[in-house]
This record gives sequence, C-alpha cells and structure tokens, in this order.
Amino acid sequence: MRYRFFNARVLTMEPGRDIFNGEVWVVSDRIKFSGTEEEASTYCESHPDEMLVWDEEIDCKGNLLMPGFKNAHTHSAMTLMRSSADDLPLSDWLNKQIFPIEAKMTAEDIYELSKISILEYLTSGITAAFEMYLTPFSVADAFRDCGFRCVQTSCVNNFSQSVELLEKYYKELNGRDEFNSFILGVHAEYTCSKELLEKCAELVHKYKAPFWAHIQETESETKECMDRYGMTPIEFFDSLGLFDYGGGGYHLVWTSDKDREIMKKRGLYAVTNPGSNTKLASGIAPIKEYLECGIPVAIGTDGPASNNCLDMFREMFLVTGLAKLKNMDASCIDAAEVLKMATVNGARCMGLNDADYLTEGKLADMIMIDMSQPNMQPINNIVKNLVYSGSKSNVLMTMIGGVIRYQNGKFNIGEEPLEIYEKAEKIKKRIYGL
Amino acid sequence: MRYRFFNARVLTMEPGRDIFNGEVWVVSDRIKFSGTEEEASTYCESHPDEMLVWDEEIDCKGNLLMPGFKNAHTHSAMTLMRSSADDLPLSDWLNKQIFPIEAKMTAEDIYELSKISILEYLTSGITAAFEMYLTPFSVADAFRDCGFRCVQTSCVNNFSQSVELLEKYYKELNGRDEFNSFILGVHAEYTCSKELLEKCAELVHKYKAPFWAHIQETESETKECMDRYGMTPIEFFDSLGLFDYGGGGYHLVWTSDKDREIMKKRGLYAVTNPGSNTKLASGIAPIKEYLECGIPVAIGTDGPASNNCLDMFREMFLVTGLAKLKNMDASCIDAAEVLKMATVNGARCMGLNDADYLTEGKLADMIMIDMSQPNMQPINNIVKNLVYSGSKSNVLMTMIGGVIRYQNGKFNIGEEPLEIYEKAEKIKKRIYGL
Repeated sequence: MRYRFFNARVLTMEPGRDIFNGEVWVVSDRIKFSGTEEEASTYCESHPDEMLVWDEEIDCKGNLLMPGFKNAHTHSAMTLMRSSADDLPLSDWLNKQIFPIEAKMTAEDIYELSKISILEYLTSGITAAFEMYLTPFSVADAFRDCGFRCVQTSCVNNFSQSVELLEKYYKELNGRDEFNSFILGVHAEYTCSKELLEKCAELVHKYKAPFWAHIQETESETKECMDRYGMTPIEFFDSLGLFDYGGGGYHLVWTSDKDREIMKKRGLYAVTNPGSNTKLASGIAPIKEYLECGIPVAIGTDGPASNNCLDMFREMFLVTGLAKLKNMDASCIDAAEVLKMATVNGARCMGLNDADYLTEGKLADMIMIDMSQPNMQPINNIVKNLVYSGSKSNVLMTMIGGVIRYQNGKFNIGEEPLEIYEKAEKIKKRIYGL
Repeated sequence: MRYRFFNARVLTMEPGRDIFNGEVWVVSDRIKFSGTEEEASTYCESHPDEMLVWDEEIDCKGNLLMPGFKNAHTHSAMTLMRSSADDLPLSDWLNKQIFPIEAKMTAEDIYELSKISILEYLTSGITAAFEMYLTPFSVADAFRDCGFRCVQTSCVNNFSQSVELLEKYYKELNGRDEFNSFILGVHAEYTCSKELLEKCAELVHKYKAPFWAHIQETESETKECMDRYGMTPIEFFDSLGLFDYGGGGYHLVWTSDKDREIMKKRGLYAVTNPGSNTKLASGIAPIKEYLECGIPVAIGTDGPASNNCLDMFREMFLVTGLAKLKNMDASCIDAAEVLKMATVNGARCMGLNDADYLTEGKLADMIMIDMSQPNMQPINNIVKNLVYSGSKSNVLMTMIGGVIRYQNGKFNIGEEPLEIYEKAEKIKKRIYGL
C-alpha cells in the first residue's frame, strides 16, 4: 500500500530536529519520505519519474505522527493472570499464584492469550514488543499472525527450556518471517545454574551475540547472588563472558556503581519497568545514575500479571516521576529524554535499528496522536504533553510495517477481539478449574 | 429524561455488595432504581402505578455502570500552564512560572480555561471536582454552564482574595444553582498570616462549617511553620479552632503521628494527590498510616500545571503503587480501598453525600466502563482491573445529574471543544505575549 499522510505535525525523533508541519509517505513497509510541505514539493519536482499514485491519502488535521513506542520487556501471554494475583508480596505472587498456573499452560494457550496483549499494545501506540515466555514458537506465531513486530529472548532456566532449545530458537526464529527475531537470553541468575550459564556463554561466543536476562529486579535477588558467588548478577554474568557482545538486562533496580561500570564498559542497555517495580514493590531503578554514566535506558511494561496495564504512557510518566521522587528533584529526567527511551532506545536495544526514526528508508512503524483531546490542550509543548498528560485515548492510529493495525478504536489483526476474549475465557475456565 | 440502562454489570459501591448483572433507571437527576433483572421485575410488579415510559433505553452490553469518580482537589484553569513549566524545582515552578502568569489572568480567562479541564474530567469518568482558584464566581459559572458538579473552596491568602470575600463566596455560591457549592478554606499556612487565619476561624465558628487548605505538601513548608510557630500547620490550624467542625487538607504528604491524631480526633479527610506529588518531587503521602488511623482518604489530580494529566485512573494506580513502594510491601492498600477513595470518600469529603452510591434516591452521577477493551480482558476481577489496568479509554459514558455529558468520545457541554481550544489559544497568546 502507498499512503500519503498530510497536514500532520511530524516528530521524527532524529536528534536536534524539532516537530514540524508536513507530510509522511509510506510505500510498502517503509517510510518513503518525511518532511515539510515545502520539502515535499521540492522532492516531487526533483523526482518527476517517481511520482506516486496513492492508495490512500490521509488528512491528519494537525495531529501528530511519530515512531511507535517499543515495549522493551513483556510476557504477553500472562493476560491469563491479570487481576487474579494482585496485592500480594512478590514471593507469594510468583510461587503460589504464577508458577502453578504457568505449569498448566499449553503452547496453544500461550498463542491465544498473547493476542489480548497485542490488542492492548496497539491501543497504546506500541509497535514492537521485546518478549520472553515459555513457548517461543507459539509466541512468534501469535505475533506473526497479528502482523505485530516481536523480538524474543528465551526464559531458559533450570526447570524449563534448555540451552539446546535456546540455540534452536535462535537459529529458527531469526529470519523465519518479517515480524519475528530472536536474541540470546535466560530467565535470571536465581533460576539458572552456573553450568547452564556457562553453556549459554559458549553460545554467546559462538554467535558473537548480545545476551539478556531479568537482572537485579529485587534487593533479595541481588543479595542471594552475592551470598552464592560473592558477586552481583551483573558481575557474575560478566565474569562468565555473557556480556562480551553486549546485550542488557530487564528491571535493573538494585545496581551498584561497580555494576554500572560493567554495564557502561560492555555497552549494555538498561530496560526499566517502573509500573511492575511499583506494583510489586521491587523498588525504584537508578535512572538518573544510568543517564549520568551514559548507559542507554529503554522502557518495558513487563507482563500483564505484574503491571497490570500495557500502556507506554503510564510507563513514561512513571520513569520520570519515580526518578523525581527518588532524587527529590522535580527537574530530574526531562520529558524529551523519556520519549527517546520509549522509542529510539527501545528500537535499538531490540536490534530494530530500522525502527528508530520517522525518516526515509526506515520501517513504517508509526503512530498518530490525537492533539484535539482536552489533555493535549492548549498546545504548549507537545513532547511534555506526550510524557506528562498523554494517554492511550490519544492514539488514533497504529501502523506496523506499513499496515494500519489499529485506527479509531478498530483493530485489524485478522481476528475480532471478541473471538480472542472468548477463547481466553475458555482457557481460563479450564486452567483455573472454574 | 428517563433512562433505562439494562444488560449492565452494576457496581453500586455500597459496602459488602458485589458487582451484579442488572439494570439502573434514571429519572430526572436521580437514580430511580438499581438492582438485578429479578429485582427489576419484582419492582415493576409491586409498583404497577409507577410504570415508566422511557425516553431512552440503553443496552449496556455487559459493560459496567458505577458512580462517577470525584476529583477531590484541582485548579481547573491552570490548563494555561500545562506543559509550559515542567521539569523544574518546586520553588522555581511556583515563583518564576506560575505566579507571574496568574497575575495576568482575568476572571473571564479563568472561565474559559476551566472548560478544558471539564472536558478532560468527562473523558476520565470524573463527575465532580473539588476546586480552588482565583475567581470563584467565574469558576462556578464555567461549571454551571457545562453542567458539571463543582464544590469550591477559596484560595484566600495574604496577596489575593480576603476573608470578607470568602464569606461572600460562601453565602452566595451555596444554593446559587444545582451544580455549585462552596466550603470554607484558604490557600495554605505559608501564604496566610495568623491574623487572616484567626478571622477565618471566626467564620468557621459563625457557620459551624468545615475548613480546608493545602497542608503539609512539602517538607520545607512543614519545617518553616515549625520555625514560625513551633507547630506543624495541622497543629497550628487546630490551635486556632479552624478544625472545630471538621474539614481536611490537600496533599498531606509530610505528617507526623501527632498530626494524624489531630486529624483523627477532628474527623478530617486527607485528600491525596499522588501525580502532582510525584511530578513536583514533593514526596509520598503516608496513606497506609492514614488508613490504619481510620482517617478517610480521597483522591485529587491537583491542577493541570502540576500533574499534568487529569486522570483518575492514573491517580488510583499511583495511590496504591506509591504506598507499595514506600512500605516495600506489594500487599499494601488493596484495590477495593482505592476505588472507595476515588468515589465514596471523594463524594463525602466534598459534602456530596448524595453522590456516593449507585442506589435509589442518589444523584445520577454515573459512568459506564467499557469491559470489551483488551486492558480489561480476561475478566478476572473488575475492581482490580479498574485500579491496575483501567484507563480513560475505558470510559464510554459520563452522566452528571441525569444528563449524559460525554458518550463515545462526544461531548455535550453546550460548546464544541474546538471553540474552547481556540479561545484558550487566544488567551495564551495574550498572556505569554507570543
């Protein structure tokens, strides 16, 4: 399809480029052009041979086009446990509520349940998810069938999956289809033996590939690793060579100066999950310290059982708000920095380097934000509006790979939401024995 | 108008009453009936003389009807400064950005600018606002003209308004129209002389009326009062007799055990403003301690310059989330408690005792929540859904006093949003000199 979006405000997210009034053209899965009206005219004049016939011309009526948000950590199929295990201490939440339910979930269940999250991502302007769950092939199928971009890592640990499976996922999911890719990783230090991690390090070196895991989410996780190995999880992983080709960690709430030195040295990304860390009382991540060290930060919602909302607007507010509270400084972490985390940094940590900016040649993973909602008025500063007063209700359109998957409240993922919900209800009844 | 809402899930907010499937009938500005289908049939049989002809019958399709949210602290006209004064320390925010702009605002400006907030309240299912701003009469006009319920207090201080005006507001705004009422109050201890507060105490005793103010929002405000009077603001206000007939405070972030004893003894409400306290780095209010003392808590967004979002869903998540973080306990402050704060407690602290429950005889201040959005699926626990994954985007309808003011994204407040935004742009240009 060839789309011409005109009469738009455009935020490309390129460094130093302010929001401008102009046009964005999409051809197939890529951005063909983004620029001012004047630049559009100049382009047409200088490329008379390229004159395009549009399948659709969309008057944006002054609304904002920008790159989609990248949800840099989630477990999509955990919709099953949303609102069924809240207001509980973390250990009870995991051991008494989550693990027993997960033991009953099939690959097919996970396929169906992931779709509810995909619908929610679309409503929040999210165009890619960095996913980790039990059955990577059925997860990849769900994302492919919905036309939603997914980068997965595994949750290999002592009790499920294996390093052999990890390599299989890596080899088979990369390049399998246009929506899926796979990055090496494990669940976490506290669920993996040293032997398992050493085998992972061999894979990391074999493929010269980055490595990811849940890292230092809670204080006790960090302390227990110190007790076991005399090192923090970051130090321990690094000592095994797991970070020799970069990568990063999810959560990273409890890190020391020494941890951050390693992160900086290895070029690691910190994916922060403030909604989940808040609801599970895990703590507030040292975002200010990461930025001061030059460690890039991206943002994830975590799964719907621990957040429970898959909403990048809530997460963006929390990233800066919690940093302000932690440092007792209202000037801490400017809105523009947060917006970069939710878009550019998210894309790069997931290896989606073509989904960072809204410029020629990049993937057409783009959203339209309604500026005529009262929470955006009057228009004083759009970047601050997005981070401080923006909401899911401002998302008018979510496009992935040049296909509009969500527009004006309607979904286009090949299946009606009510069908997806009905299947989830059946799974719920079977698993919970209701 | 006579509305019959059927095929609904109904949450009346009465203690001990679970959500049921049933009907709600609205006649004029009141709830005529709420109950199960069976109770509706029984009612019809036993009241054959009362059989109603409906103006409209609305199939709720399983969506949820519940009392509207009560925004228990705001400054609506501060939309003007939204996103124009962010990421600044509190003192710079107030003295360099807010006060100089406020000095240029007319009563007419405040009338127009308040309407943007009223639109936003409607999108978030808010049906009443506890308002404080510079020109109470023009604020009251804005709320009346939009058909939105407003309870005001004054922001009397050493520099604007006066105790004489306070009494005038109290006498003239109470009973003036069906949407407005007025409660005695001042801006804050740190902006009011002892003499001014003593005169207020005379009014409190003359009218045997509750008293409100911003109280102990920041640590420095509390310390400075200790330096001035050897007492915290709560102790000081109480020593002047200002709380002899109850009332409460906004923010109340920095309170001691002794403050809470006074609050409990005087029957004060604590209105918490977690979004604002987060963004301005004021701190985390001791909500757990308030509940343990039996002090009722209500929730306010604060104004759009300090939050910047007027969204009760964000506030509800923050109330429990920040309490969980502060106490490092994921089981702290159950979702049901938060929902009560946002509805029942809000209504009562504002003196809107007829707007607490969705039951016969109560005001028809009611909202409809979309259960078919993906963030509500699968439906495991609706109360937890509302607090943890709910969003503005779930608000299908907002009714105030039996009139539908917002439905399916359309407003009904006597003026089109775009007209309101255009007026705000003009005011902005004049005041900021753009």
